[in-house]
Amino acid sequence: MTVVVVGNPKPMSRTRAAAELIAHELSGRAPTAVIDVVDLGAGLLGWGDPKVAEAKATVLGADSLVVASPTFKATYTGLLKLFLDQFGQGELGGIPTFPVMLGAGLQHALAPELTLRPVLVEIGASCPAPSLYLVDSEYATAPELAIWLESARKFVPAVTP
Amino acid sequence: MTVVVVGNPKPMSRTRAAAELIAHELSGRAPTAVIDVVDLGAGLLGWGDPKVAEAKATVLGADSLVVASPTFKATYTGLLKLFLDQFGQGELGGIPTFPVMLGAGLQHALAPELTLRPVLVEIGASCPAPSLYLVDSEYATAPELAIWLESARKFVPAVTP
Amino acid sequence: MTVVVVGNPKPMSRTRAAAELIAHELSGRAPTAVIDVVDLGAGLLGWGDPKVAEAKATVLGADSLVVASPTFKATYTGLLKLFLDQFGQGELGGIPTFPVMLGAGLQHALAPELTLRPVLVEIGASCPAPSLYLVDSEYATAPELAIWLESARKFVPAVTP
Amino acid sequence: MTVVVVGNPKPMSRTRAAAELIAHELSGRAPTAVIDVVDLGAGLLGWGDPKVAEAKATVLGADSLVVASPTFKATYTGLLKLFLDQFGQGELGGIPTFPVMLGAGLQHALAPELTLRPVLVEIGASCPAPSLYLVDSEYATAPELAIWLESARKFVPAVTP
Repeated sequence: MTVVVVGNPKPMSRTRAAAELIAHELSGRAPTAVIDVVDLGAGLLGWGDPKVAEAKATVLGADSLVVASPTFKATYTGLLKLFLDQFGQGELGGIPTFPVMLGAGLQHALAPELTLRPVLVEIGASCPAPSLYLVDSEYATAPELAIWLESARKFVPAVTP
Repeated sequence: MTVVVVGNPKPMSRTRAAAELIAHELSGRAPTAVIDVVDLGAGLLGWGDPKVAEAKATVLGADSLVVASPTFKATYTGLLKLFLDQFGQGELGGIPTFPVMLGAGLQHALAPELTLRPVLVEIGASCPAPSLYLVDSEYATAPELAIWLESARKFVPAVTP
Repeated sequence: MTVVVVGNPKPMSRTRAAAELIAHELSGRAPTAVIDVVDLGAGLLGWGDPKVAEAKATVLGADSLVVASPTFKATYTGLLKLFLDQFGQGELGGIPTFPVMLGAGLQHALAPELTLRPVLVEIGASCPAPSLYLVDSEYATAPELAIWLESARKFVPAVTP
Repeated sequence: MTVVVVGNPKPMSRTRAAAELIAHELSGRAPTAVIDVVDLGAGLLGWGDPKVAEAKATVLGADSLVVASPTFKATYTGLLKLFLDQFGQGELGGIPTFPVMLGAGLQHALAPELTLRPVLVEIGASCPAPSLYLVDSEYATAPELAIWLESARKFVPAVTP
């Protein structure tokens, strides 16, 4: 019941691949749904779009979330924020949530903890693990990914078979 | 030559009125242009849209900027960030820039300094004054506006008549 | 087994009283220890002081932490940071930790989430609940305290009798 | 009239050497004073210490400031914050101020802009240039130092001979 949210303006991005990998490694199975926010299109610019509403419902039904963004201007993308703006304060109701950002180099490594996580907390996420930043060219093999997974895994609700 | 950028999903918003007032008070004349980002529409979701390019050119030609957003999820809007994501790192080349946010209550007063300003600095803004936060129901009469204008005004380039 | 850490330069401060109340309300019993950082004195300015080492050991033995600071210059105090600087990266090993700040007015309400929590996460805290900010003149009766306790309580390890 | 403030618990640190170099490069002459905060000792833990008062007066008499810290727990040191806590809100009255942090690696590069600068702004600094982060092992030869100096230099008040 892990849902992945990806805020990369390019569909089927490396951000998405990384987030799916992380969701799988965290929960032991593929995510039940992936919201590639770019697919929601211009409906994100207003309120009440049915595709956006459906994506929101998928998120609200998750028992854990991986929310991933590439780094644009030293923080998350405007595209991801458009989607997060559709949620009310506290609406996530404490769903365990893992903020993840990918970037070209280490210099933005503080961005997920200092900028993405507070937005997720504002809409009701519980972020019990440190936020994760990965250099995009080597995300799958980064030693920090393995270390992070070790510590984050214990916060994922057990899967009932 | 002050340009105003407004990131409220509602056109002709109170955010816009406040930003125009501030630009006028800072420079002694009405802003030369107002970019109400919502007018740019779905072109913001990609790259290379001609209306977006024109708006960018207007911003890059300014000699000072007021960049204003309502507070969504304790920070600037996704809509504003979509537009800022269109700029390259350092592209503003040091234009004096005044970050402004309006919100329903005082509890988000740190948001412009801690969240909006770093994005503007990343795209090359010089932000010599403290960032400004105003409670939206009383922005025009807030005593902190007058105090802020006093200190911010000295950073606005003198108008050549 | 809840330990309280207080970073107010005034001993026996309102910050301390608030943190003790919160620890009690969270866990159903008085905190097992209170570190009033000011009591550690000049030993905080170096490394290896025995009183500081003892305080660190108390913190590391906790099964939950309330870390509280008054708001100085829109963030936590230098005094609290002196103590936190004594910990290594990740040293807390995931202890559930609740960042709390008190301030004179609502305008610094974002400070605990945006400034204190990242420091605690860096030294290994797990912060599953939103950070808490209280206006100091009315902390005990603030409705947001009751609401916050409701949501935070579920992250406190059950007390074995 | 550039004053340097250094918040490294080790006296005569690399942080200090870097800050002095930067002050010299910015203004074309050696700083008029260097406050190595660690020299102020235990007087920093209270209020009204004469050495601290003298250091404050030196800072308040500057016409530009370089404020430098090593990176501890992904942000400035508690030692530096102790000194900054001695200033009132807005007390610097708009002195052009350059926040600088040194760290072991690039992963904390966002710390000066996101964490140190807001504290300086709160006590009245004007920070017109981007905040500077340098990897400590190579600070003097880092290409980003030369680029940063180019853009920051124009904000330093001209020296009257």
